[in-house]
Amino acid sequence: MASTSSLALSQALLARAISHHGSDQRISLPSPFSRASASSSRRRNNAASSTTKLRTLRPLAVRAAAVDTLEPTTDASIVDKSVNTIRFLAIDAVEKAKSGHPGLPMGCAPMAHILYDEVMRYNPKNPYWFNRDRFVLSAGHGCMLLYALLHLAGYDSVLEEDLKSFRQWGSKTPGHPENFETPGIEVTTGPLGQGIANAVGLALAEKHLAARFNKPDAEVVDHYTYVILGDGCQMEGISNEAASLAGHWGLGKLIAFYDDNHISIDGDTEIAFTENVDQRFEALGWHVIWVKNGNTGYDEIRAAIKEAKAVTDKPTLIKVTTTIGYGSPNKANSYSVHGAALGEKEVEATRNNLGWPYEPFKVPDEVKSHWSRHTPDGKALESDWNASFAAYEKKYPEEAAELKSIITGELPAGWEKALPTYTPESPGDATRNLSQQCLNALAKVVPGFLGGSADLASSNMTLLKAFGDFQKATPEERNLRFGVREHGMGGICNGIALHSPGLIPYCATFFVFTDYMRGAMRISALSEAGVIYVMTHDSIGLGEDGPTHQPVEHLASFRAMPNILMFRPADGNETAGAYKIAVTKRKTPSILALSRQKLPQLPGTSIEGVEKGGYTISDNSSGNKPDVILVGTGSELEIAAQAAEVLRKEGKTVRVVSFVCWELFDEQTDEYKESVLPSGVSARVSIEAASTFGWGKIVGGEGKSIGINSFGASAPAPLLYKEFGITVEAVVDAAKSFF
Amino acid sequence: MASTSSLALSQALLARAISHHGSDQRISLPSPFSRASASSSRRRNNAASSTTKLRTLRPLAVRAAAVDTLEPTTDASIVDKSVNTIRFLAIDAVEKAKSGHPGLPMGCAPMAHILYDEVMRYNPKNPYWFNRDRFVLSAGHGCMLLYALLHLAGYDSVLEEDLKSFRQWGSKTPGHPENFETPGIEVTTGPLGQGIANAVGLALAEKHLAARFNKPDAEVVDHYTYVILGDGCQMEGISNEAASLAGHWGLGKLIAFYDDNHISIDGDTEIAFTENVDQRFEALGWHVIWVKNGNTGYDEIRAAIKEAKAVTDKPTLIKVTTTIGYGSPNKANSYSVHGAALGEKEVEATRNNLGWPYEPFKVPDEVKSHWSRHTPDGKALESDWNASFAAYEKKYPEEAAELKSIITGELPAGWEKALPTYTPESPGDATRNLSQQCLNALAKVVPGFLGGSADLASSNMTLLKAFGDFQKATPEERNLRFGVREHGMGGICNGIALHSPGLIPYCATFFVFTDYMRGAMRISALSEAGVIYVMTHDSIGLGEDGPTHQPVEHLASFRAMPNILMFRPADGNETAGAYKIAVTKRKTPSILALSRQKLPQLPGTSIEGVEKGGYTISDNSSGNKPDVILVGTGSELEIAAQAAEVLRKEGKTVRVVSFVCWELFDEQTDEYKESVLPSGVSARVSIEAASTFGWGKIVGGEGKSIGINSFGASAPAPLLYKEFGITVEAVVDAAKSFF
Repeated sequence: MASTSSLALSQALLARAISHHGSDQRISLPSPFSRASASSSRRRNNAASSTTKLRTLRPLAVRAAAVDTLEPTTDASIVDKSVNTIRFLAIDAVEKAKSGHPGLPMGCAPMAHILYDEVMRYNPKNPYWFNRDRFVLSAGHGCMLLYALLHLAGYDSVLEEDLKSFRQWGSKTPGHPENFETPGIEVTTGPLGQGIANAVGLALAEKHLAARFNKPDAEVVDHYTYVILGDGCQMEGISNEAASLAGHWGLGKLIAFYDDNHISIDGDTEIAFTENVDQRFEALGWHVIWVKNGNTGYDEIRAAIKEAKAVTDKPTLIKVTTTIGYGSPNKANSYSVHGAALGEKEVEATRNNLGWPYEPFKVPDEVKSHWSRHTPDGKALESDWNASFAAYEKKYPEEAAELKSIITGELPAGWEKALPTYTPESPGDATRNLSQQCLNALAKVVPGFLGGSADLASSNMTLLKAFGDFQKATPEERNLRFGVREHGMGGICNGIALHSPGLIPYCATFFVFTDYMRGAMRISALSEAGVIYVMTHDSIGLGEDGPTHQPVEHLASFRAMPNILMFRPADGNETAGAYKIAVTKRKTPSILALSRQKLPQLPGTSIEGVEKGGYTISDNSSGNKPDVILVGTGSELEIAAQAAEVLRKEGKTVRVVSFVCWELFDEQTDEYKESVLPSGVSARVSIEAASTFGWGKIVGGEGKSIGINSFGASAPAPLLYKEFGITVEAVVDAAKSFF
Repeated sequence: MASTSSLALSQALLARAISHHGSDQRISLPSPFSRASASSSRRRNNAASSTTKLRTLRPLAVRAAAVDTLEPTTDASIVDKSVNTIRFLAIDAVEKAKSGHPGLPMGCAPMAHILYDEVMRYNPKNPYWFNRDRFVLSAGHGCMLLYALLHLAGYDSVLEEDLKSFRQWGSKTPGHPENFETPGIEVTTGPLGQGIANAVGLALAEKHLAARFNKPDAEVVDHYTYVILGDGCQMEGISNEAASLAGHWGLGKLIAFYDDNHISIDGDTEIAFTENVDQRFEALGWHVIWVKNGNTGYDEIRAAIKEAKAVTDKPTLIKVTTTIGYGSPNKANSYSVHGAALGEKEVEATRNNLGWPYEPFKVPDEVKSHWSRHTPDGKALESDWNASFAAYEKKYPEEAAELKSIITGELPAGWEKALPTYTPESPGDATRNLSQQCLNALAKVVPGFLGGSADLASSNMTLLKAFGDFQKATPEERNLRFGVREHGMGGICNGIALHSPGLIPYCATFFVFTDYMRGAMRISALSEAGVIYVMTHDSIGLGEDGPTHQPVEHLASFRAMPNILMFRPADGNETAGAYKIAVTKRKTPSILALSRQKLPQLPGTSIEGVEKGGYTISDNSSGNKPDVILVGTGSELEIAAQAAEVLRKEGKTVRVVSFVCWELFDEQTDEYKESVLPSGVSARVSIEAASTFGWGKIVGGEGKSIGINSFGASAPAPLLYKEFGITVEAVVDAAKSFF
């Protein structure tokens, strides 16, 4: 995919996505889109108005005012039927799986129906169309709601057979929504509160890109972000963090539906959740609307969405009071319908109660027919947008090229040449400062590079000097100011990363405070969101702040986490190498653990070495048989190098290995691994100012690991290194124990 | 300390504390307290009124209305001088350390002075006196404020030499407040938001104990919890979680001062924090007061405290608008004064500006004299309380015995006999259910046992059946309902645990959601808060909920964390064993990873075995030389046992080892370790449905580890075990590779 013509842009993106979901053969590329798109969309428009009024609900022009879509023109009986279809698809799937959460889909079906059938703009045959509205089910346990909607809307990812294999091995319909399994799912939710934070990230991305790329005559970026969150999400701290930022940033195109059903797993929310949510959101700078009858008040819901869209300077919370498990005569409005199948008898009773004569998994023909328009409508929406983008590209070629890079994830040729390189003569510096050089170099050449810190920009060294702050009035800028909200920051960055393949968000705090955002970081790893975590103050080397601020177990804890790269660079070249890989790895997040303290530029380090994860930086042995191998990372690689010099002066052959990224080393060939850590050499010493947990695998049964297996202490860093025994002498002594 | 007379109660506690702080010789036991306490306190009272009006600020009767203490009777000039003393002690200490945070102490000195000098009831010579008011500096970076206060108030833990060794190795004045280093510090803060959550826990503990033990004629439990939090704490999600619960519970004796200084590290809070905090706290059910002049408005502060105390059904937030770095002519009201020494020149300018002629670290004589009354007053307060408690004990011996157990941490004799035991014939069960049997057994015999779940009580199986819910109107009950607020839950439990040695809080969620509360769990470990973490759904064995809910790396991540016990019991006996240790270990938190799925009661497991951390449950070898050692934990111990049977049938000698708690095994003698894992036997196979990270240390260089190094999947649990290769066959095959 060396070059991408603007016309094939969304198709290229789709092809990319398909290549990721390699085993999925169901997504067919839309037929090549011709320049006749404008007339094509006019034709569709005519066809629409000649059949039912419903078709007019889909605006055709990219810039159509979205509130136009909200006229309650749909025949109420078909809405009822469609809503009940959603309810029963959820009921039936959970019943068949004997596992799942029917309560939320039953209660939220009305608002969800209106969103997917009347309001949202999407193309079911290309779930990755750039300008689609985004939807996030923050209350991810209710995923059958989303699967039912995708099924009705015509997404190929959720066919009837998928609904029938809900929560089964290898299905497209896992127990919580997973973007990496099911095209049409934007983000991975389930752990509560993550989704609303992701939605803030998605809305931020839209606001940023719109501000950067839209022109008075061409709004090529223009979509809404919708989210449904429940009482559980509302209780989580991360949601307050993210909502506070959304209000601060004035994300007017973020519309959140709060499923206010007063039930959580432990029963009535009265037992633990009696705050005034409306008032809290008003305090956070949101516009708040209350839909009192979320069960059948379709027009109320429509009016609320219309009002929300009219408020453009604030995000909107629509509190929709619903009945969990609506329709179930004996279980509605109780926790028993939250997370378990209704049971055969109650399913029957619910069918009777809602007047539903159909067999399980049946979509009534009129419902099917009603929803069938979304396939042509979606295709037309995308075609129209492609035409708009083509016109934009002609008029604004530079901007179009940048935006295209963001849309496709194709990095500009030669971007990596912008990364700084160093020689041993280059001045020593803290890796957090070297990191800042990389960040600023990358931001100049990578259009989708943006990020910031959780109120530690001046400590994490994360400011992009060529840009201003992303703020309500300056959303085109790229420095994000997250405040002291680590968890929200992580969730927001996941949303940014999953908005477009070429958006590369970084975020920063002290390494120890990954503890505050680990929930979001795990979702980065699981959902293949290539966020870059810039984590400074990475050891006792931070000194006086003491043990509350000194990470010890954190390196080990991330090395144990799947699909995340844990880098601990030792100097400038290694920092640049870590960034090179982090930028490239769009489906694997990266963490960079960086020093507060100054470090020298070491001989032998290299970007190429970092790409191998572990590599030799110096060796005076021959025949792959050193007397001892010293392995270090980050700030302790210098200590290993110094110890090697001492030992070499005493006539020993010593290899010094930088183990900057264990995960990348694991990926290397056996031959390469043997060339670095020959199995015949059991004399190995590791040194790292952190827990030795896990090092046994590297140094082997006879090896020695120097580290810190207790909490740190408050004192100047050099003294801490001495007191905790992270010294050249300790390495030399350990090495000598082998001779 | 087999028996503790009521009179010596607080002294016993003090002695206990001293034995913990073994190296600290500074705390002297108060001289034996005689029954003459009443007259003694009267004498003090007379003495007080004969000298200055100030002495009357300390109420003598335990039940004295606290608002009486708030008359602004103190001569303003001495208050000014005292406030400036606090400011300059902070300035001087940071200057000497060339590291630290002068801004907050300079801005918060007025409110802090009023609290410690006019409002709070404490005994500086016994920081552990049970009925003391608790103070938490949630903005822990401002710890010099606290050290200055403790110094002025007469605490022996912070002498002038300690102030001069601020942030130095081995000092009592580390870079953030550490309860385990400095008597007088209640909890460990620094990571933002933790302190306010701790304070909620402290206030909860008071409300609970007061409801359980106070009588109309004897309020033996009666104290306030004060906290200062800053903008940073306010932004953190954990603080919203904890504040929401505090409002829900109506913790009327929790009074929080919000240091509203508009500055955080990155600059003006306008860049990231524009929400309406007052309105948010009102929404959370708090009473909110605004002190507009926190810099010099002493009477405003006093009036606010008076008002806060008058509101007994809600916690109060006093927003105190201050100037960070107040007094510094060139750095006040800027981020530059937040976290760095002022510098010699600016210190001089500040001295001039505030009219401070004294040399560094000088406490003017009149200030010293003014504060000196707190030593006799504190002693009298405690004496009075001891007298009250003695009377209480006479009248209510049973309640007194229970309360005493909570105050001292001495468990009732034979408590451990309440734990259930099992034989292989006992019915199999999920360890989460077996855990519930233990929790209920313990709650009956351990007076300070209380806890609950983050909205998963029915899944975590944590309800205490003999008790109701701790709620606003029923605070005497012991089931805590945290809602979906894991991080807040952890922080609150730390507060409960550190309130009294005999309060043993447990809290629960799914194991994977430790990611949401890891910040608090690390503080449990660091601050020696013996919280019990009941973490169910501990592997892919939870099945259909899928990878968002399936822990993989979590066992490894906690095994790498210092001072926390990570248990993964396999059946009933091991679950009981884990609880036995967890209850005993009051200075080390414990995590129990428990299964959702049913497990058999295995032959060979035992409480005694668990106490060793790792132990043999079956072996058909002799001479400590089995052909192979199979090591398992939790739900996979059964698989190891089954594999052993297969191998034994084939004539092999096989040892099966349960490795239920790595940390406890590490503590055993080399002889014991050798008896379980003989160095001569390198044929070892581990099996655990989790990351194999770290197992290299146990199985050795030639051993094999069966586990899961990727994320899980959504499907029924038995199928997941098969698909991920966590099977008897896999263990047998691995074992056979050695033969």
